[in-house]
Amino acid sequence: MAPRHIIAIGGSDAGISAALRIRELDPVTEVTVVVADAYPNFSICGIPYYVSGEVTHWTNLAHRTAADLAATGMRVLTDTTATKINVVDHTLDVLDNAGAPRQLSYDALVVGTGAVSARPPITGLTGPGALGPTDGVHLLHSMGDTFAVMESLARRDPKTAVIIGAGYIGLEMAEALTTRGIAVTQIEALPEVLPTVDPELGAVVHAELTRNGVEVLTNTTVDAIGRSEAGALTVGATHGGQSLSRTVDFVLVVVGVKPDVELAADAGAELGVKGAIVVDDAMRTTLPDVFAAGDCVHTHHRLLGLTWLPLGTTAHKQGRVAGENALGGAARYAGSLGTQVVKVFDLVAARTGLREHEALAAGRGWTPVSTTATPDDHKAYYPGATPINIRITGDAASGQLLGAQLVGHRSAEVSKRVDTYATALFHTMTVTAMSELDLSYTPPLGSPWDATQMAAQAWVREHRLAAERDRITV
Amino acid sequence: MAPRHIIAIGGSDAGISAALRIRELDPVTEVTVVVADAYPNFSICGIPYYVSGEVTHWTNLAHRTAADLAATGMRVLTDTTATKINVVDHTLDVLDNAGAPRQLSYDALVVGTGAVSARPPITGLTGPGALGPTDGVHLLHSMGDTFAVMESLARRDPKTAVIIGAGYIGLEMAEALTTRGIAVTQIEALPEVLPTVDPELGAVVHAELTRNGVEVLTNTTVDAIGRSEAGALTVGATHGGQSLSRTVDFVLVVVGVKPDVELAADAGAELGVKGAIVVDDAMRTTLPDVFAAGDCVHTHHRLLGLTWLPLGTTAHKQGRVAGENALGGAARYAGSLGTQVVKVFDLVAARTGLREHEALAAGRGWTPVSTTATPDDHKAYYPGATPINIRITGDAASGQLLGAQLVGHRSAEVSKRVDTYATALFHTMTVTAMSELDLSYTPPLGSPWDATQMAAQAWVREHRLAAERDRITV
Repeated sequence: MAPRHIIAIGGSDAGISAALRIRELDPVTEVTVVVADAYPNFSICGIPYYVSGEVTHWTNLAHRTAADLAATGMRVLTDTTATKINVVDHTLDVLDNAGAPRQLSYDALVVGTGAVSARPPITGLTGPGALGPTDGVHLLHSMGDTFAVMESLARRDPKTAVIIGAGYIGLEMAEALTTRGIAVTQIEALPEVLPTVDPELGAVVHAELTRNGVEVLTNTTVDAIGRSEAGALTVGATHGGQSLSRTVDFVLVVVGVKPDVELAADAGAELGVKGAIVVDDAMRTTLPDVFAAGDCVHTHHRLLGLTWLPLGTTAHKQGRVAGENALGGAARYAGSLGTQVVKVFDLVAARTGLREHEALAAGRGWTPVSTTATPDDHKAYYPGATPINIRITGDAASGQLLGAQLVGHRSAEVSKRVDTYATALFHTMTVTAMSELDLSYTPPLGSPWDATQMAAQAWVREHRLAAERDRITV
Repeated sequence: MAPRHIIAIGGSDAGISAALRIRELDPVTEVTVVVADAYPNFSICGIPYYVSGEVTHWTNLAHRTAADLAATGMRVLTDTTATKINVVDHTLDVLDNAGAPRQLSYDALVVGTGAVSARPPITGLTGPGALGPTDGVHLLHSMGDTFAVMESLARRDPKTAVIIGAGYIGLEMAEALTTRGIAVTQIEALPEVLPTVDPELGAVVHAELTRNGVEVLTNTTVDAIGRSEAGALTVGATHGGQSLSRTVDFVLVVVGVKPDVELAADAGAELGVKGAIVVDDAMRTTLPDVFAAGDCVHTHHRLLGLTWLPLGTTAHKQGRVAGENALGGAARYAGSLGTQVVKVFDLVAARTGLREHEALAAGRGWTPVSTTATPDDHKAYYPGATPINIRITGDAASGQLLGAQLVGHRSAEVSKRVDTYATALFHTMTVTAMSELDLSYTPPLGSPWDATQMAAQAWVREHRLAAERDRITV
């Protein structure tokens, strides 16, 4: 096979994973990664820990250094912006690091343009004269955003901050700013923080924020952000029909992201769920020889079907598949289960699979029912045992496991326990069958039935015991 | 259905699990648990933590109190020894707690007689005049053994001890005695400690013992234990043809257990692997209406077939199946994967599935090959990252995952990571497919590819990359 040239657009998880996979499988094919900024292969998920000071230098956030990447044989073009995909010619127009137009040819292309921060329609945040980093008002998604935040923190030395949004990044940033000694008010429009889990588990996270001095305002919608002559920032919001405001030194807006699809869309790629790029399970777009992966594409979810669920883990997997297939392989993305975890102070919250309303929305005929149990992480007689809130969702009719949500102390190995559920979901296990798994046990670290199995048994007792009894007495 | 009476013999994991399952499924059937000592439902696995002082009172070792058990409606006869099963009559002869003979009738019987300590053929340990607890020489498997150890520790106030055996209980006791300020010499006949994992991983545990002041003598066979007039204990051993000895205040012999099958064997039950009671996957013995479960029965291993592998986790599962089926149910024991974990000072060592020599012995035509990787438990930029030694064994021909061994710091969530492999093994995954699992990620607790997946990818790179490349270029 003649040498080929593959271009990956995007220096984050999807693009780099694709390039690494190509180099691993085929040391001959040339690979060029086009990166819009100067920070290829940086860990976006690590940003809160740099802001908190736990990561001492921003360069440590690189998964791999430039030298590591070069050693694989890939070529990385930093500060290079892809401007147009010429599908028929198989060329890519870019502006190089001097701002000059250039054209690169490819045999196959992997689009990994990722996502961009959503900018909510808040007065003062949009339109002409919108407040921004120089005012101490920040979005946070890229390394560029991060440097702006750090510069602002250094210059303004804020004592108080409002964080708008209480999702993963919002919660991590509440911890990070608290760690820096800043008094944080966290505002969430929905009824509870961490809306990706059920409110009863979100409430546990809420209590942990409060315990650590974060003021939490839920059911609260931010209407406007204003700046006084002296530079103070006033955040105006509505809660239950009442107005309230907080005047602070620093405002962070982290209400989510949206897929960055302009380049692919301009080239004619079909867009789907939430405007993300349509791909098949080989990560092929609707354009010839153009693959896409990561936050910019829709996601095949093993239980839900097509959705959009931007996650680094997913981007790595999809990028790897896209890279292999750009080479001519036949890899398939197996699909997501939406497995996620976040540390918030001394708590860890995780989920995998579906919650009840999601399972209903899947339209698969399930009757989703849930049970929450609070088994200890390990035997109570050994010091340090702590209960884990585990909420299991399953189909009442078939007994199929549909999802699990867990919140527990950071010592409770919550993040790897959710992995047991994720692996069980991958294989379409029933909740009952979870008890057949041969999981590990030693008193300092578990129980003869692991907490994951005790929670499954609680679900079975509530929703299937009658059926089990009938089976016996027939 | 008329009320029935089921008897479970044995108050440890298997017997109690059976009784609990029966009560859960059928509140009418009477259940009697016959327990030879006064300690039903005690955690044998917790004994080292009582000896160490971490468990402050022995009563805390009870999984459930006598009141908890009574509340389920089961009847527990303590200090009651089963002496004969009369198979035809469906009666059980016992000596009650006053030593008087009684006879109990049953409709179904569950034998959970467990295991007893092996007593190795060491001079001074067997035959007339054998040393025992009054001399400071101990076996350790039951609560009775535990009280004798504690009495000996209190009375002799030992400064030095020899532990013969470096398996799970031996290692836990090395830590426990060290925690009590006793200088421990640990003697193991095999080439490395923790012989249930490959020597390269056992060596990591060995180093942890040494780091904590334990003198470790491997490849060393104990020949004799003697007692001086003054009460000092001399342990004579052989290492590489050379004699050596240690004179200490306390000796613990923990070289394993053997199934306690006398009762069932006398009644005519067939015995199989290692002399354990033969059962089918419904936990039926060869005797009518007699079930058996736990350490006294042979074990169906999902990869190995029939073996003997006494573990509390297995006993719980088998007891539950036996209880359900004693009621007339149709439950099946799904089989073991030999998943095990032990904490040794600040390390955790775990395994699941098969090592190479075990996979060969299974006779399934596998070509088992292994790769060890040392991925970090979480992103290196977040404080506290620590490498986990992960050794993956898979079939070179099919790529099937056959086993995983892990040793890492106690902060590295090793015990739950082995559960991911155990769940993957349960579903006969390939090592390659491990990378398809949607596992959780946040920088303080993991990586975009979890350590379990990075280790799997290292195995694939070493053993399957050529095949993967061929697939591309075809």
